[in-house]
Amino acid sequence: MVEENNRTELSDLGEFGLIKHLAEFVTINNPSSIVGIGDDAAVIDTREKQTIVTTDILCEGIHFDLTFTPLKHLGYKAVVVNLSDVYAMNAEPKQITVSIALSNRFSLEAVEELYSGILLACKRYGVDLVGGDTSSSLSGLIISITALGEAKEEEIVYRHGAQENDLICVSGDLGGAYMGLQVLEREKAVFKDDPNMQPDLDGKDYILERQLKPEARKDIIQLLKDFHIKPTSMIDISDGLSSEQLHLSMASQLGCHIYEEKIPMDPTTVNMAVEFNIDPTLCALSGGEDYELLFTIGQTDYDKIKSDPDITVIGHMLSKGEGCYLISRDGSAHELTAQGWDAFLDANPEPGPDDLPLPSEN
Amino acid sequence: MVEENNRTELSDLGEFGLIKHLAEFVTINNPSSIVGIGDDAAVIDTREKQTIVTTDILCEGIHFDLTFTPLKHLGYKAVVVNLSDVYAMNAEPKQITVSIALSNRFSLEAVEELYSGILLACKRYGVDLVGGDTSSSLSGLIISITALGEAKEEEIVYRHGAQENDLICVSGDLGGAYMGLQVLEREKAVFKDDPNMQPDLDGKDYILERQLKPEARKDIIQLLKDFHIKPTSMIDISDGLSSEQLHLSMASQLGCHIYEEKIPMDPTTVNMAVEFNIDPTLCALSGGEDYELLFTIGQTDYDKIKSDPDITVIGHMLSKGEGCYLISRDGSAHELTAQGWDAFLDANPEPGPDDLPLPSEN
Repeated sequence: MVEENNRTELSDLGEFGLIKHLAEFVTINNPSSIVGIGDDAAVIDTREKQTIVTTDILCEGIHFDLTFTPLKHLGYKAVVVNLSDVYAMNAEPKQITVSIALSNRFSLEAVEELYSGILLACKRYGVDLVGGDTSSSLSGLIISITALGEAKEEEIVYRHGAQENDLICVSGDLGGAYMGLQVLEREKAVFKDDPNMQPDLDGKDYILERQLKPEARKDIIQLLKDFHIKPTSMIDISDGLSSEQLHLSMASQLGCHIYEEKIPMDPTTVNMAVEFNIDPTLCALSGGEDYELLFTIGQTDYDKIKSDPDITVIGHMLSKGEGCYLISRDGSAHELTAQGWDAFLDANPEPGPDDLPLPSEN
Repeated sequence: MVEENNRTELSDLGEFGLIKHLAEFVTINNPSSIVGIGDDAAVIDTREKQTIVTTDILCEGIHFDLTFTPLKHLGYKAVVVNLSDVYAMNAEPKQITVSIALSNRFSLEAVEELYSGILLACKRYGVDLVGGDTSSSLSGLIISITALGEAKEEEIVYRHGAQENDLICVSGDLGGAYMGLQVLEREKAVFKDDPNMQPDLDGKDYILERQLKPEARKDIIQLLKDFHIKPTSMIDISDGLSSEQLHLSMASQLGCHIYEEKIPMDPTTVNMAVEFNIDPTLCALSGGEDYELLFTIGQTDYDKIKSDPDITVIGHMLSKGEGCYLISRDGSAHELTAQGWDAFLDANPEPGPDDLPLPSEN
């Protein structure tokens, strides 16, 4: 791409120039991607499979803060959050379209950084960039991505398929992305007060990476296939465990118990939560942006996953009348509430009912 | 929907509340729409057909001006511009996803107005709203729509299929949307100077509708099917005839002649252009937003379309070496230039080489 320290104005290229320039870096690899960039629309052929479609819009100042988010990481993450939704259907993502709107604050070199992250995610996950749109905005950067995937009809896993007594499983660990954000916000505030202060990020790599460069759990979808497990219901954790579990329970018209002591958390996450005076469990329940998979399986599948380090059984489904509860370490039951990350609340952050500060990027 | 004069804050509903509320107005009608709103992703089954995907992002202050654009019209137009791209592939649009980002200036009632236009367009064109995303923005309204369509592989028409001596055809008439915008901009400026002035929009219904509530040419796609014509190449006119014809010519590696006297224009458009001291032909060549179809057909198909009032033959394709020219009424040849509507130039409008003011909404 272009040398560093140069600044090429987007207005010098125009929209067609920019699209043409970006398209030079794009290759098409999936057999189902018949035609990509360069016509009125892309053409896709999933043949006997069904097509999965999901879309997300990310706005500067709401979803990301460019003072501590490198553009390449942002591009990578913007793709990953969409792919995560496709995997949550037990499907394989194959194509994305990317629309961006940006103010004249951004140079061509900045756009290239953003796209280098987008294309890196495409490469890692075997996804083709097949179309998009570019525009000016009056303020800030907006990224809107649509991901398309494919799966055989009988493979697709919805939110509504859980059965009574099914085991509730989660991949990886939770709360890390939220604590990563808290650290970045704190260091930003410190830097604002005294620009000579160096950020204190030592030993926090794990949670920073969880926030800045999350991965979608392609590996878990493959693992489940290898184990011959088809989850009965599945969702990805973008808004916090509590909110997502309520989605599964409501869609399946069932109750559930989740056991606090079973919720997988990385020690870095727990330590940082303690440092911030936040209950670590609340980070997992309501922090969001973990992009792990939450799914239910029949009890007969338990033996297949019980020794896998990437999957943790955290509870089980119950009849609807039994409600949705977190069973705490002392055995008391707390009703789950949808205290998730909310893009609307976030614009005017206020303390939530659990006194958990919502992620704020203002 | 909610009574007029009420104002419900979006922050009172939250993102899930808003999505749930909007989803109540959405129905799924196409057999290929297997699952719509309500899971991690939508599921689509086009069976033996191929899937067409196109996306557009529209930003307040760049693509639309809410001082003279009713939200319902804006919603309608935002859908139509995407469907137009699907028709330009000779395909049938079937699904859309809609992502919006908006500041707290907008109430629930405003969002409902926007969606009422979106859903009206869905109904008119037989398209299902199957997913989307909603978010806050720090300033203004952003709408990102992805449209999906379907067509048999052998039906799809690309930009690159034109052959030497093919006839160049255009549907409807051109330049109207651009002149409609000029009128609206003028009346806005007048109103700014003197808020007691009433807007002078009499007799301008046609061009105002072309700007505020364009239609996609579903009827032309059907007409071509009825006539057993498969265009050799096709594109929709969003950026002006000149720019789009250059796309067809470049993709097909051919030259062309377009005859000025053949370009279809409505008398209202021509009269307004004269009033504004703009060459009417320039409105057609560079105005944009007409959403008519530009396509090429073999000469043997001429008899089938020659008496159709909705289709005009405006020129023919030539070998590459002969270049791309407009033949003016006096017989002189002018090279076509891609002086289209450009979202980047538009943010900092400057007079173009043809002295045609670019649409500016600042």
